[in-house]
Amino acid sequence: MSFETLLGAFAALCSTASFAPQAVKIIRTRETKDISLWMYLLTVTGFAAWTSYGVVLGRWPLIASNAVCLALAAFILAMKLLPRDKKDAVADAVTPEL
Amino acid sequence: MSFETLLGAFAALCSTASFAPQAVKIIRTRETKDISLWMYLLTVTGFAAWTSYGVVLGRWPLIASNAVCLALAAFILAMKLLPRDKKDAVADAVTPEL
Repeated sequence: MSFETLLGAFAALCSTASFAPQAVKIIRTRETKDISLWMYLLTVTGFAAWTSYGVVLGRWPLIASNAVCLALAAFILAMKLLPRDKKDAVADAVTPEL
Repeated sequence: MSFETLLGAFAALCSTASFAPQAVKIIRTRETKDISLWMYLLTVTGFAAWTSYGVVLGRWPLIASNAVCLALAAFILAMKLLPRDKKDAVADAVTPEL
């Protein structure tokens, strides 16, 4: 595999994985006050458009990586928008029993 | 311009613009508690790799859009890492006098 391909794959991996720690942090702390609503409105719209772009072109790497980002960003946006009690209920539901 | 190209351009525009509202919010509120450090470590690494990928391929649209994202994400990461007094000093420095 060429250096360019490895560099691109590494970049794609970092970008795709990046929303996971933010989602985990929100599940742990249940706090979203400092997170920008407008950032996630733009991000979710962007990843929905990227995923559609992948569908139109029929390119599964575009579809797969952007669908993962879309799901994570949509979760963060939903948690940002939900009222306190609903936020807690979702976080409880996805947290394994200790 | 084809529908595919417009869709891709729209997706790129949303993704590139998405970090700006988060940066503005941090300058206004000076709060970064709910923002994930690991998310921005991954994001900055990812955009640095995407920008390098653009340089290696010699493609200026890749370089330009990823360099903008890299600058905004690096600013957010720096504000997350700075102690309170430094955070305030940076926010004051970039806020126009009222």
